[in-house]
Amino acid sequence: MNFNIELPKINSPVANYKAYKVINNFLYVSGQTCRKDNKVIYQGKVGVDLNIETAKLATRLCGLNILAHVFEACGGDFSKIISCVRLNIYINCNADFKDHAEVANGASDLMVEVFGEIGMPTRSTIGVISLPSNSAIEIDAIFAII
Amino acid sequence: MNFNIELPKINSPVANYKAYKVINNFLYVSGQTCRKDNKVIYQGKVGVDLNIETAKLATRLCGLNILAHVFEACGGDFSKIISCVRLNIYINCNADFKDHAEVANGASDLMVEVFGEIGMPTRSTIGVISLPSNSAIEIDAIFAII
Amino acid sequence: MNFNIELPKINSPVANYKAYKVINNFLYVSGQTCRKDNKVIYQGKVGVDLNIETAKLATRLCGLNILAHVFEACGGDFSKIISCVRLNIYINCNADFKDHAEVANGASDLMVEVFGEIGMPTRSTIGVISLPSNSAIEIDAIFAII
Repeated sequence: MNFNIELPKINSPVANYKAYKVINNFLYVSGQTCRKDNKVIYQGKVGVDLNIETAKLATRLCGLNILAHVFEACGGDFSKIISCVRLNIYINCNADFKDHAEVANGASDLMVEVFGEIGMPTRSTIGVISLPSNSAIEIDAIFAII
Repeated sequence: MNFNIELPKINSPVANYKAYKVINNFLYVSGQTCRKDNKVIYQGKVGVDLNIETAKLATRLCGLNILAHVFEACGGDFSKIISCVRLNIYINCNADFKDHAEVANGASDLMVEVFGEIGMPTRSTIGVISLPSNSAIEIDAIFAII
Repeated sequence: MNFNIELPKINSPVANYKAYKVINNFLYVSGQTCRKDNKVIYQGKVGVDLNIETAKLATRLCGLNILAHVFEACGGDFSKIISCVRLNIYINCNADFKDHAEVANGASDLMVEVFGEIGMPTRSTIGVISLPSNSAIEIDAIFAII
């Protein structure tokens, strides 16, 4: 595991839901947008307002926001994480966008960077017409936890 | 728990799937649209055909349809529900829509109203280009059950 | 169980993720597109570039790609599958598309064909603005496994 990554300050849920829940050894994390210090810093359509490289940074930021919650959920001990089971990656884009897989790697790569082999997730990557607060990316996650 | 909410009549699945399945203490509920008496009563795009307040009623109706299945799954005993683990909330809208979180609260609020603290879910809220039968909202859910 | 269906050759993940993971008796399968021999063979918008019948074939192909991974995950012994728990079916379409349920049956029907009653899944069916490599359909899945 790599602990040299600086995790962002936890963003508070913006509405009536929990950021994460642990149940039956699964850790569910709510959809995280490109928020930093409670402001969405990557907005708009990937392929139009953001190029692929910037979109990967946006995707990585969603991943970091997920990790901030995971860190809290496991009491600051990432060794309690058994597996990054699933990432659902939603990309705000237009009908002609095709490079979902490349953009999604921004989050997959981060999980592997932090957890190694067990961090490599299953995932789904979907292009969508809009996201909360015009976020460029949203990602939710399921982990397995001791 | 609040049992004063009138649950809708169960809508039959419209195709080849189960409305819900219980496995390993998880209860999976299929995506529920804004159907009442087997008719989709909130149709069209949130932000165009429905304002935010009406959209919240649509979201609540999807939540009620979920609860009708949960009620059957737990044999009419809601005290068997340990947690509302996840809501995935899909909003039929245009590219410029931004108020997903507010609309999604229509379902989160309902779960808290019925189950209290354990009803507060993790969730993802996504804007999508279309939904079955032009439903304004679709929501699927995972609960934990004894 | 029906073993007379020819499963496709496994498509390699196109990016940094696992095709499937087994954890706590759940089998998670990554989103599968309409790929055959590592080429997406059904592309474009359902309702425009593909009619309903062709879209059902596309949906069935995603289902076959899922089954190819399930087959590997259970060591070639489908009797280890306890349940097809969830299918999330994403349909690449326009705002006026309404026949999601019919198209989605292409995958549900396949699961019932292969596994019988336990193959009938819960599911969500969503219309989306774009999918990886312009695939017409993407489906991810959760199974329960011994």
